[in-house]
Amino acid sequence: MLRSDQRIETCLCISDCQVTKVSEIMIQGFSQLSREEKIRIAAEYASQPVEFANVMFSHWLPEQRSDEIITEFTENTVSDFSLPYSLAPNFRINGKDYIVPMVTEESSVVAAASAAAKFWWSRGGFRTRIKGVMKPGHIHFFWTGTRKAIESFIAEINPGLLESVSTIGKSMKARGGGIVSISLKDMTSKLHGYFQIEAIFNTADAMGANFINTCLEAMAAYMEQQAKFREISADLDIIMAILSNYTPQCLVECEVNCPIGETTLFRRIEKAVLIARYDMSRAVTHNKGIFNGVDAVILATGNDFRAVEAAGHAWASRDGSYKGLSKADIEDDQFTLSLEMPIPIGVVGGMTTLHPLAKASLQLLGNPSSETLMSVVAATGLANHFSALKALVSGGIQQGHMKLHLVNILAQLNANMKEKEEAVRYFEHRYISVPEVQNFLIRLRGL
Amino acid sequence: MLRSDQRIETCLCISDCQVTKVSEIMIQGFSQLSREEKIRIAAEYASQPVEFANVMFSHWLPEQRSDEIITEFTENTVSDFSLPYSLAPNFRINGKDYIVPMVTEESSVVAAASAAAKFWWSRGGFRTRIKGVMKPGHIHFFWTGTRKAIESFIAEINPGLLESVSTIGKSMKARGGGIVSISLKDMTSKLHGYFQIEAIFNTADAMGANFINTCLEAMAAYMEQQAKFREISADLDIIMAILSNYTPQCLVECEVNCPIGETTLFRRIEKAVLIARYDMSRAVTHNKGIFNGVDAVILATGNDFRAVEAAGHAWASRDGSYKGLSKADIEDDQFTLSLEMPIPIGVVGGMTTLHPLAKASLQLLGNPSSETLMSVVAATGLANHFSALKALVSGGIQQGHMKLHLVNILAQLNANMKEKEEAVRYFEHRYISVPEVQNFLIRLRGL
Repeated sequence: MLRSDQRIETCLCISDCQVTKVSEIMIQGFSQLSREEKIRIAAEYASQPVEFANVMFSHWLPEQRSDEIITEFTENTVSDFSLPYSLAPNFRINGKDYIVPMVTEESSVVAAASAAAKFWWSRGGFRTRIKGVMKPGHIHFFWTGTRKAIESFIAEINPGLLESVSTIGKSMKARGGGIVSISLKDMTSKLHGYFQIEAIFNTADAMGANFINTCLEAMAAYMEQQAKFREISADLDIIMAILSNYTPQCLVECEVNCPIGETTLFRRIEKAVLIARYDMSRAVTHNKGIFNGVDAVILATGNDFRAVEAAGHAWASRDGSYKGLSKADIEDDQFTLSLEMPIPIGVVGGMTTLHPLAKASLQLLGNPSSETLMSVVAATGLANHFSALKALVSGGIQQGHMKLHLVNILAQLNANMKEKEEAVRYFEHRYISVPEVQNFLIRLRGL
Repeated sequence: MLRSDQRIETCLCISDCQVTKVSEIMIQGFSQLSREEKIRIAAEYASQPVEFANVMFSHWLPEQRSDEIITEFTENTVSDFSLPYSLAPNFRINGKDYIVPMVTEESSVVAAASAAAKFWWSRGGFRTRIKGVMKPGHIHFFWTGTRKAIESFIAEINPGLLESVSTIGKSMKARGGGIVSISLKDMTSKLHGYFQIEAIFNTADAMGANFINTCLEAMAAYMEQQAKFREISADLDIIMAILSNYTPQCLVECEVNCPIGETTLFRRIEKAVLIARYDMSRAVTHNKGIFNGVDAVILATGNDFRAVEAAGHAWASRDGSYKGLSKADIEDDQFTLSLEMPIPIGVVGGMTTLHPLAKASLQLLGNPSSETLMSVVAATGLANHFSALKALVSGGIQQGHMKLHLVNILAQLNANMKEKEEAVRYFEHRYISVPEVQNFLIRLRGL
């Protein structure tokens, strides 16, 4: 590997005047090139080639081992993209205290989670309940024979289907996981000739995507082979075999609870939550605020946020109209805010133990089981949700948010301490945006 | 700031035997502590305190300026979480060639995007159409007076509402944005007494969340003030004023098209896409595959993936049942795969120009407008979608996927070149997981 001084040299041989646009030529063999060569080619596409290449080279991780590990997660990696790794203290979840690791680019999210955690710490904290950890997968196929014929075919091959994955499932079985059930689903009322084999999996402490897909593909191959053997191949058209990211059986419930006291706060929150059950436009934002917390922990622990987002939003639409994921109740002057959502994640496999900071996150949480991690994720989602609701119903979110936004902009514009202080004073009651702050600094600096 | 050698020293004063669990004490003033002190406290919660602290300290970015900028995005930041920054070449979008920056932790995603981009490059590439760029926001309120009374109140204050945001919108107006319309929405059929003021915004090249929320809060304050002035405050209960992340009017369409030729590939893809219109379990995974590409570009350009996920999945459920976001057609032996989804993003504001690598991503894409970036994002989503479908209907995704998975595991387990080669041979037709590879290496090393 190049040392960092060599990197700069390599990169400096690109200059803005030497650029040849290669727009009409397909790039061949890109994946085979070295990282340096990839950056050199990409720089030719960039509006500021030298600056682009310099940024790529200067953001390789200093820890060579980490750089290598992270580089190998994906293909054509040329640099490392950093997001802030933050801590939200004072999470009391099922009676145990946690400092929750969060990775997010959005300002206020960590502050909001921390504030809510602190608020609920002295009110008993978050209580969670795991309502299931099962994940489904399907062999999707079309069948032109009779329903009776497919039923008896599947019944016949059922033991063989399970047998076909026995070697794959060995280490999963040792960890308490495996296939829970296999069933035939008749989908012909929706689509002519369409059936599924649905398999339900327990993936123990792993998210389990690879395990489920490997099992399903092996089962599909077995099914095809058996159809050939029975000379019914002409009737069977297997389209695909794949896990489902819709995991209504991998579900966690989380709630907080306290007396309503004298303020109107909780009654106003109750109304805000009610609105999200009846107005889709609000429900989407309502849930986005939950995912601000959820995804920050998902990222920090090396899990797949696309999977959790897909499962959660689909779950929000399950009864025919998209709704908020939370509920608020006031009964006997007790306020309860609760959240129920699918959180398909793991604590082994994938990036969870490969990424040094993901591994550190799991250490920080006391090496949790996947069920405990589901609880921490849900609690953080509910914390962010509560803070957002609290701010929204008591005068808006912008005041706190914009102050943090100003800090970011001032950092970008290289403001010194004195300029920062003046800017905070000036923008206390003014709208904050990059051009506005830029103009303010220009005036201040007398440029 | 500490130099890295000092950091290690600071961190070494924590040892596993000195740990005192602070589980029963609320942590006070955490946000005021230095980064070093935060790490020290967090280490006390970690199962391996020294290792945890070392990882935190050793992953600060070497570029001090970047480290400072990224640290200030959020609160309580203690380290930098890196994800691989990768490049997918050969994207031809509306006749122009791009190398697309992608940030994702999931193996195969960049390879899949690149393979699809190359496939479609010589078949005319991706064509996109922006169907709108408007974003909504709402003042949610309850009204106990008559419908006629609220209608005339809103009609009266309408000019004042617009005037109340005129200074906020100045620089937005200069960039071609602003408030497009304000209207009263009667929601009482859904929830007793519930109304909205809906404002539609054009946020030009910004994602615009701060702008929209600042406008709405100013308008809500004006509305409240006017109600007081007219002595109708008792009838009005403004609950909140906030943007909606459901953006059906900020929409992009993207498609690819080619002759079907002799293979069954495109007919099989057509069936797979059809299934996702009728089976929710499949639709969620179908869309998750689209978001694998979408989010990787969203992250690489410093945009907010929670916003895009929320908008997209809600859009998928808009007609009462959750469906796939894409369509496939075969007509006159021409195959068309298309995708339509809301992509609310920006190219100024937020993290887009603050994060050095996000800025570099925009340079790589030729400093696009937000509409052009919407096109690039949609094309990448469609590319990943096509690759997933292609693999799924032609023998499964695991073969390619598991090979990359094996490379990751071998890297984690410190395998040398010779061991890697042996492992690739051994696992060619075997199931791959961390324990399986671990056992293989133990046997190989004769331990």
